[in-house]
Amino acid sequence: MKKTMKAAMLYGPRDLRLEEVPIPEPKEHEVLLQILANGLCGSDIHFYEEGKLGPFVVDSPYIPGHEAVGRVVVSNTVGPKHPKGELVVLEPGIPCGHCEFCRSGRYNLCPDVVFLSAPPINGTFCEYVAIAADMVYTLPSTLSVEQGALAEPLSVGMQACRRAGLKAGQSVAVVGSGPIGLITALVARACGASPIIMLDIFDTRLQKAKELVADAVINSAKEDSVQAVTTYTNGRGVDVVFDTSGSSKANASTPFLSCRGGVITIVGWPEKASFEFPMEQVLEKELDIRGVNRYCNTYGPVLSLLASGLLQVDGLISHRFAFDQVCEAFAFATDNRQSVIKVVIA
Amino acid sequence: MKKTMKAAMLYGPRDLRLEEVPIPEPKEHEVLLQILANGLCGSDIHFYEEGKLGPFVVDSPYIPGHEAVGRVVVSNTVGPKHPKGELVVLEPGIPCGHCEFCRSGRYNLCPDVVFLSAPPINGTFCEYVAIAADMVYTLPSTLSVEQGALAEPLSVGMQACRRAGLKAGQSVAVVGSGPIGLITALVARACGASPIIMLDIFDTRLQKAKELVADAVINSAKEDSVQAVTTYTNGRGVDVVFDTSGSSKANASTPFLSCRGGVITIVGWPEKASFEFPMEQVLEKELDIRGVNRYCNTYGPVLSLLASGLLQVDGLISHRFAFDQVCEAFAFATDNRQSVIKVVIA
Amino acid sequence: MKKTMKAAMLYGPRDLRLEEVPIPEPKEHEVLLQILANGLCGSDIHFYEEGKLGPFVVDSPYIPGHEAVGRVVVSNTVGPKHPKGELVVLEPGIPCGHCEFCRSGRYNLCPDVVFLSAPPINGTFCEYVAIAADMVYTLPSTLSVEQGALAEPLSVGMQACRRAGLKAGQSVAVVGSGPIGLITALVARACGASPIIMLDIFDTRLQKAKELVADAVINSAKEDSVQAVTTYTNGRGVDVVFDTSGSSKANASTPFLSCRGGVITIVGWPEKASFEFPMEQVLEKELDIRGVNRYCNTYGPVLSLLASGLLQVDGLISHRFAFDQVCEAFAFATDNRQSVIKVVIA
Amino acid sequence: MKKTMKAAMLYGPRDLRLEEVPIPEPKEHEVLLQILANGLCGSDIHFYEEGKLGPFVVDSPYIPGHEAVGRVVVSNTVGPKHPKGELVVLEPGIPCGHCEFCRSGRYNLCPDVVFLSAPPINGTFCEYVAIAADMVYTLPSTLSVEQGALAEPLSVGMQACRRAGLKAGQSVAVVGSGPIGLITALVARACGASPIIMLDIFDTRLQKAKELVADAVINSAKEDSVQAVTTYTNGRGVDVVFDTSGSSKANASTPFLSCRGGVITIVGWPEKASFEFPMEQVLEKELDIRGVNRYCNTYGPVLSLLASGLLQVDGLISHRFAFDQVCEAFAFATDNRQSVIKVVIA
Repeated sequence: MKKTMKAAMLYGPRDLRLEEVPIPEPKEHEVLLQILANGLCGSDIHFYEEGKLGPFVVDSPYIPGHEAVGRVVVSNTVGPKHPKGELVVLEPGIPCGHCEFCRSGRYNLCPDVVFLSAPPINGTFCEYVAIAADMVYTLPSTLSVEQGALAEPLSVGMQACRRAGLKAGQSVAVVGSGPIGLITALVARACGASPIIMLDIFDTRLQKAKELVADAVINSAKEDSVQAVTTYTNGRGVDVVFDTSGSSKANASTPFLSCRGGVITIVGWPEKASFEFPMEQVLEKELDIRGVNRYCNTYGPVLSLLASGLLQVDGLISHRFAFDQVCEAFAFATDNRQSVIKVVIA
Repeated sequence: MKKTMKAAMLYGPRDLRLEEVPIPEPKEHEVLLQILANGLCGSDIHFYEEGKLGPFVVDSPYIPGHEAVGRVVVSNTVGPKHPKGELVVLEPGIPCGHCEFCRSGRYNLCPDVVFLSAPPINGTFCEYVAIAADMVYTLPSTLSVEQGALAEPLSVGMQACRRAGLKAGQSVAVVGSGPIGLITALVARACGASPIIMLDIFDTRLQKAKELVADAVINSAKEDSVQAVTTYTNGRGVDVVFDTSGSSKANASTPFLSCRGGVITIVGWPEKASFEFPMEQVLEKELDIRGVNRYCNTYGPVLSLLASGLLQVDGLISHRFAFDQVCEAFAFATDNRQSVIKVVIA
Repeated sequence: MKKTMKAAMLYGPRDLRLEEVPIPEPKEHEVLLQILANGLCGSDIHFYEEGKLGPFVVDSPYIPGHEAVGRVVVSNTVGPKHPKGELVVLEPGIPCGHCEFCRSGRYNLCPDVVFLSAPPINGTFCEYVAIAADMVYTLPSTLSVEQGALAEPLSVGMQACRRAGLKAGQSVAVVGSGPIGLITALVARACGASPIIMLDIFDTRLQKAKELVADAVINSAKEDSVQAVTTYTNGRGVDVVFDTSGSSKANASTPFLSCRGGVITIVGWPEKASFEFPMEQVLEKELDIRGVNRYCNTYGPVLSLLASGLLQVDGLISHRFAFDQVCEAFAFATDNRQSVIKVVIA
Repeated sequence: MKKTMKAAMLYGPRDLRLEEVPIPEPKEHEVLLQILANGLCGSDIHFYEEGKLGPFVVDSPYIPGHEAVGRVVVSNTVGPKHPKGELVVLEPGIPCGHCEFCRSGRYNLCPDVVFLSAPPINGTFCEYVAIAADMVYTLPSTLSVEQGALAEPLSVGMQACRRAGLKAGQSVAVVGSGPIGLITALVARACGASPIIMLDIFDTRLQKAKELVADAVINSAKEDSVQAVTTYTNGRGVDVVFDTSGSSKANASTPFLSCRGGVITIVGWPEKASFEFPMEQVLEKELDIRGVNRYCNTYGPVLSLLASGLLQVDGLISHRFAFDQVCEAFAFATDNRQSVIKVVIA
């Protein structure tokens, strides 16, 4: 086997370079994957454009990307769990496995999680990745590698639905109809949500939402969203609100979209750390507000839903690039945010 | 308005007569419904054939039927909640509203529930029914009266899925592929179950199961069902088992179909009150076994799922009769159990 | 039986008059109670001092009070459920029994609830009250009427603990150590909370908290409460935070008191409808925020806990008055808020 | 440090020998503990008497014991998590940390768990034990080593209460009043259970139960236990039944002890793998039956409850032996089962 591979190295804002780097050595209990496809995440684009995101800063060159599908080329595990040649989806956050959060099933809260593509940890925009064998999942044979590359963002939607305790037959409002809004709505639909109302301030997004999943759409720039949801639900409000918008103003409207006893799940990272919120409504209506931070134990169900056809995601992929064009893909996605839903590089 | 109506009166085994009886008077907070369609339930057929079911005996003539859709003709309620002319689905078990079970949301456990068609209480195989206004639900405008007539049996499937705590992406085995088995599987699918394995001892039923919903079917008369489920799930077992069979032998096999930590939900009334059960498995695998007794708070979500198209039920209706042929319908359903799934009389 | 009774009528701010009024007639399914004891609630005092509270205004004279114990003198119910002579505790919020919230077990969210003592509805500071028989609970024979009068505020604490999903062995911080803070902490202790940290800005309250229930107390006026809780919990934060303070500033600190994945339950009505809140923490730590609005299905467990001795409440009653002194009691409680915990009038 | 230690080696039925064996070497991420106290478990006694238990057979000499407290003498971990000199309680079942059960928080269901004292794995009846650092828990400074040695059996009681979803104020029946029955009742009390009814066939045990925790006791050899529980609960049945008896007959009575919608939790390993069970009741009353297999995530809450004093366990220790008398202790406990509750060897 060759010793080096191509990798997309991010040096700083808008400085991504396709370089030749050493292929990593898989350790004990690890597998080495040949990467076949990668989705481009909003966070990748953020690092590409700004060179930082929250506490993470691009201090030295690193490889972005964490929505990957690969083929097992070396399997350093005992037994045939993920044999050589198998196609697998990769879960990019490796928890410590020992803390109270790991032990109690909420490993996404592990304070020592190592997340591929959070600088300086290398990600998956390269030819080969070595990763713990228990962080990869067999790609069902009926799924394409492109569909598999969506398992990571779909996991965010699944975590949102699980955190919401969403039950079949419940009504849902999704605030924000960008990629995560669409994904959350699609997973909610696969969980039996009905009806699904989607909100945004851009008509193009709402049109896509309507086409892919929404029963009703509301442009909050043009009409009063609280009024519109209230009317649509005959004055009751919805059972579950998902806020994927990041907007403080939109977030502060969510208690007014909810029915009494409803659940508000916040998926989109807020643009401001702190903002004015109508907390009195939380008591008045006895609401639940629930945060979402990545995901845990979601890959299995997401792959099942994809395999069953309950989760229809082909409409999400708006643009495709070859791996050699990875630098062009980053530039394109950065410059065309409005029209891009999901870029897959394969 | 006329004073009498046609009603199907059951006098005893196989003695059903279409007679002219007084139209009931709706009391305060009641609505009077003109019945438009009725599903024929297995329990109706049981009373028809045997004159009794469990503790209930046909001592005097009464009207069977409880899977009904009607049009509001008198609304003795304040305000426009269910206005005259509205099409509604009827929930046939009227709880007391005051006991601890009613107060805590499990009104199906109310010891004083009055269930339409449980003799001597009259049911819905007649032209008009008076019922408490809060026991009827608006039929969504996109649904047919036939689909509405399925809301009652679908509620049993919904209760089973809710009791199971079924989550999207979980694997399911449905033991028994008769009407309740099919209904449970269809609701499970709408809740995101995947894959769904169905079991029965008749190939005709399994063929229907495969056609309507099942990802895999197993004929337990021809192959070892535990072995087959174990193989299909790569040795793991399924997350949720629904037993709709009523068979003691099948029931005793359910712990062996389940994964560790799995849930077994028993929907089908057992043929024997007491039987040999491998309880050690319940400890060994730390299983949950959960009984289902009718349903509560299920009509809303069932109608939502029907309206959204997530719940596809048209294939369930195998035979149709006009109301004037109600006696023929009972006789036919009794004599053709194998081929009948659901008879609707409208 | 006599036809009139003494009642405390509130005419407006600080204008409470002991008057002779007609004894109410119990209707069907109601009981008539001779009131034996009444706790004085903060909301009673608020109406007494201000003549209004939230949307409720004292437009015409009415009877305050809703924390009552009485003896059944007329029982208009069939059977011996609450026979004449029985001592009972009264639940003051009468739900409609028919809406989706009543039907699903969250009757405290019923939009048509009738709450005794919310003007213009009369309350319990009088000699006789007629009330629906299913809103009274048998006082266990080992309990005093004074203890029974605490069942209503204890129900708020119980609702808070149930909404929090509090489990035995979890660590708790209670923000605010007034009457509701103490009550919440006492119920939390009976649910197995350990340790319990209590916070306030008054040392006298904290001293009482320490004496009755707290493992540790923090004066947030004197030390940084986030720092102090963090230190006490070795950097982890607590499993459950109860905010009983009503203070916007204190409320905004709660996410920093919580562990990752923790639960913040808001019991104290906020002083402002809307305020600055660090929502980013809710995502970062994947927190749950849960509002509390009165209570439902709590009287049974509260009376069980009192009967078992797990809930020790005698220290809560700081002052006692005879019913003839009800006007003095209101004035006293209003003028001595700092030193008063709970006044019982019997 | 010395190279060898004393260890109690079990060679076969009633053949326990105190021998000199090598002190184990702690590996990376392990701690070496000097054992200070050990509780004697029923399973230890079973192996001692029979040489086998379920699938486990004493083929070669091994060290029994798994209810241990020790002092850290070597800490091969980075940082001060469990520093040298600290007193710690040991959790004896080491899960793999990688399977779906470990990842989702139910690590007690890990198929690859390694359990200390399940032959041929050595246990804790020796002077030194090496164990993974994340399987030990700091002993709170207010607790004795004897109390710490009870954390393991108390964990079984805690798992039973958590599996039952036991909530404060719920009524409980504990079937079987041996050590696990007493422990389950004590933990249930700390969780707020009230009242607690205990059942057994031996008066001596019931007397102890009454003394330590029970509100009422029933001798099922002398009176009809279903009748007695029904009478005690005014015809309602209890919210939660714990079966710790292992008796098929007692287990088959549990549905009749439960209220409608109640929960039956099975803690005691059944004497027979399969037996006659009244499953119809599970549907009729819509019951939950839940198995218990060891415990997970229970040590933290158990130690908190002990530290708070909510869990009073001193009455459980009936006999004490020095470590040099370990062989005598095994013989004594085997020959005096009726009078022994818990033997601690320190």
